[in-house]
Amino acid sequence: MSPTPVAFQTDNHRTVLRITESALTPEGVLSLAEFRTWFEERRQVDVAQVRRIDLADLDRWSEDPHTGNIGHDSGKFFVVEGLSVNHSDGPVPRWTQPIINQPEIGILGILAKEFDGVLHFLMQAKNEPGNAGGVQLSPTVQATRSNYTGVHGGAAVPYLEYFRSADPGTVIADALQSEQGSWFYQKRNRNVVVEVQDEVPLLDGFRWLTLGQLHRLLAEDDIVNMDSRTVLSCLPFAAVQLATTFPAAVDSLQTAVLRSSSQEEAGRHPTGEILSWVTDARTRNQVRAQRIPLADVTSWRHTATAIEHEAGLFFRVIGVDVRTGHREVASWTQPMIEPVGTGIVAFLVTRFGGVLHALVHARVEPGYFDVVELAPTVQCNEENYGWLPAAARPRFLDRVLAARPEEILFEAALSEEGGRFYHALNRYLIIELDAGAGAALDTGPDHRWLTLHQLVGLLRHSHYVNVQARSLVACLHSLAGA
Amino acid sequence: MSPTPVAFQTDNHRTVLRITESALTPEGVLSLAEFRTWFEERRQVDVAQVRRIDLADLDRWSEDPHTGNIGHDSGKFFVVEGLSVNHSDGPVPRWTQPIINQPEIGILGILAKEFDGVLHFLMQAKNEPGNAGGVQLSPTVQATRSNYTGVHGGAAVPYLEYFRSADPGTVIADALQSEQGSWFYQKRNRNVVVEVQDEVPLLDGFRWLTLGQLHRLLAEDDIVNMDSRTVLSCLPFAAVQLATTFPAAVDSLQTAVLRSSSQEEAGRHPTGEILSWVTDARTRNQVRAQRIPLADVTSWRHTATAIEHEAGLFFRVIGVDVRTGHREVASWTQPMIEPVGTGIVAFLVTRFGGVLHALVHARVEPGYFDVVELAPTVQCNEENYGWLPAAARPRFLDRVLAARPEEILFEAALSEEGGRFYHALNRYLIIELDAGAGAALDTGPDHRWLTLHQLVGLLRHSHYVNVQARSLVACLHSLAGA
Repeated sequence: MSPTPVAFQTDNHRTVLRITESALTPEGVLSLAEFRTWFEERRQVDVAQVRRIDLADLDRWSEDPHTGNIGHDSGKFFVVEGLSVNHSDGPVPRWTQPIINQPEIGILGILAKEFDGVLHFLMQAKNEPGNAGGVQLSPTVQATRSNYTGVHGGAAVPYLEYFRSADPGTVIADALQSEQGSWFYQKRNRNVVVEVQDEVPLLDGFRWLTLGQLHRLLAEDDIVNMDSRTVLSCLPFAAVQLATTFPAAVDSLQTAVLRSSSQEEAGRHPTGEILSWVTDARTRNQVRAQRIPLADVTSWRHTATAIEHEAGLFFRVIGVDVRTGHREVASWTQPMIEPVGTGIVAFLVTRFGGVLHALVHARVEPGYFDVVELAPTVQCNEENYGWLPAAARPRFLDRVLAARPEEILFEAALSEEGGRFYHALNRYLIIELDAGAGAALDTGPDHRWLTLHQLVGLLRHSHYVNVQARSLVACLHSLAGA
Repeated sequence: MSPTPVAFQTDNHRTVLRITESALTPEGVLSLAEFRTWFEERRQVDVAQVRRIDLADLDRWSEDPHTGNIGHDSGKFFVVEGLSVNHSDGPVPRWTQPIINQPEIGILGILAKEFDGVLHFLMQAKNEPGNAGGVQLSPTVQATRSNYTGVHGGAAVPYLEYFRSADPGTVIADALQSEQGSWFYQKRNRNVVVEVQDEVPLLDGFRWLTLGQLHRLLAEDDIVNMDSRTVLSCLPFAAVQLATTFPAAVDSLQTAVLRSSSQEEAGRHPTGEILSWVTDARTRNQVRAQRIPLADVTSWRHTATAIEHEAGLFFRVIGVDVRTGHREVASWTQPMIEPVGTGIVAFLVTRFGGVLHALVHARVEPGYFDVVELAPTVQCNEENYGWLPAAARPRFLDRVLAARPEEILFEAALSEEGGRFYHALNRYLIIELDAGAGAALDTGPDHRWLTLHQLVGLLRHSHYVNVQARSLVACLHSLAGA
């Protein structure tokens, strides 16, 4: 009854090979040097003056007299409201907090096209008010529904039509993915990559780059924005026999990454076990998150300039005034979330039998669509834990902080979405434990070792991999060209 | 750059083969004849008196004086409340309705064990108040959280411990799956199958059956209950080369089903296209479903005996008094939903290149967790459509109603969950169009042809395949032994 092995490739096999080729291509139609010159120019040209203002001075945004919720007069964009959370088994069993409610599904889309037989991706140099350094690289299209249905009265979104009427056969990736569950209530965006065959007009502010080039830029501070990172993480970067199709030096990091992306490599845990573990975490954690009026949020104080936690923890809701000549609307005001301090977002990785595994965390955040998502090994802002008992200190944080330089495979300071978050900088890290240390690690009930192809498989679906882990998955892919 | 084909089996390959073997095994440790004798005995012994009562006579259930919501005094079980739905693109753009809110995740678990080298499944003969014919076959464990945490003060749930502390390697299937989105607000249950090696005590009211036996019983009216069907549909009944491992007659239905379950068979649409189509449907359909007080529901009237739609459509909320010697609690009262009339739940199927495909519908129901789930080709109660314009008549309903006897591969009258729904009977049908008619069918934007292995792949995850389609997937599997 034992079957003969058979040839079995997923239906997108050829696309995966082309993605891998692009990742291994360090220069494209535009050289990296040319890109840098162009990008520097964009940073000079596309500047914005972002000024903090009093919440009362927000224009076209107002506080509802009954609820205290802060919304736009059009009823569109988003609302800052309150959330009441009950998580009986968590380190903090109940709390209230401000949260952004933005129920519309936006589009984060990247166009792909072959040049000289290699896939390139169309990236946009875009400034957003929350970016500390101005322009960053964003997807081809990064638009809320309010944007693309013209609520803000601005210009049409360039390249949008490629995504709204894509031929099914040209879609490389397409999934709804969540965003920060501590700051957003059930927010998600459509992450989509579409390949075009025809000539595409190249607009000002856009350039085609190979995945290899994007991976190089990803490792530099604050160039590739969050929206780009999450879309890149959804690329189907896993196939059978990827490591033998693209052979690299035995025992090299590159081989460990490519083997981790090769679907025939058994992981530390079969995928069925991982799915069952996620199901169990979603059943075990009884989280009730209920939207409440912002006025009913307790332990947060409302000053002229911010809504902030009494102990100065977590984040502040602030108002900003933005002036720029390079957005659809030349000037506007808006509320933003400004996190307190710089966070740490880190994967511990190790090799089992030469196959790279990342240690993921089944994490509860109150704004998640489905209770738990798979997060980085460590994702925290250390300052927020000082007041909690030692037992609440994030597992593996100390191991991450103690990483020796030779263990650090990846390190960059990267920002979260600059349209909603003001200077939300995190230190992104990938830290490799040697095989012995990895195998010896007590992972506990809430962490599991996953291969890259398992993560890629989950990323075809919604609500499995959180936005910080998606950034790190994109960073892990970048190590394939290391 | 083209890769050599490689051997690639999913990690549960051996389990899938054993499931298929069990499906092809028509008799087990208990013969079907012995089963029937035993089941008839259970039907005689395990009887319940179910009597309609006035809503005001519900004991320990009461109407909230402010909201009109009907809840249990303990705050557990479920609440009948209101839902306000806004679906701008739907045939009815907005409405309100009563709905059951039961936020707890229950367990639907089936134990599996090999006898004489063949997997058997432990089924329970269980009576529930909504069952028209009394006892049906239910999973080993069918328990709400209130059940298994003892809120109702009844006896412990037998076999529960096998599911609550299962070794990860013994879990065959484990996913949260939704239930009726027109009657439940975001209800879901954990569908889980666990294999045991050790001796299992066989309690009164439980018997071990092969999958082949279960499939035979599934085709008979009202024997296999909804909870069993949904768990059976989650069995990982797809692997590479299933059709060549278990060869059957060329051109037979059995071969068409087994090829449909063979992962190397390309479907009419690559899986990536199907996922993108689901993503698009979830983005396109803007559905806002908001819980409201039951008292605020309009177009429904509250009589002494029921809350019912003014035009007598859809369903009624009724009260019942239940007396039995064979449940954890010997007598109780509870509200139930009683649908109006008998529904039709049907898959059109056809063979493309000899591979069976089922036509699924991307369907919106207001209680879904994530906007859209994949439903049967047709799922409706015809009586509910009389008052709507002809354009709102369910697509393909007329084709289903016109099916010739030789086109009907499966037909049975099956009930929905008898713990919440009173006499909720549907006519379940699988109708095969010949290859020419299938290929010629204009499926429109909201229907797609899927293979069984694509459906099985989606069923590893939550919120893709609705509960009626899951019943039909279990029925489709049963055709593998046809």
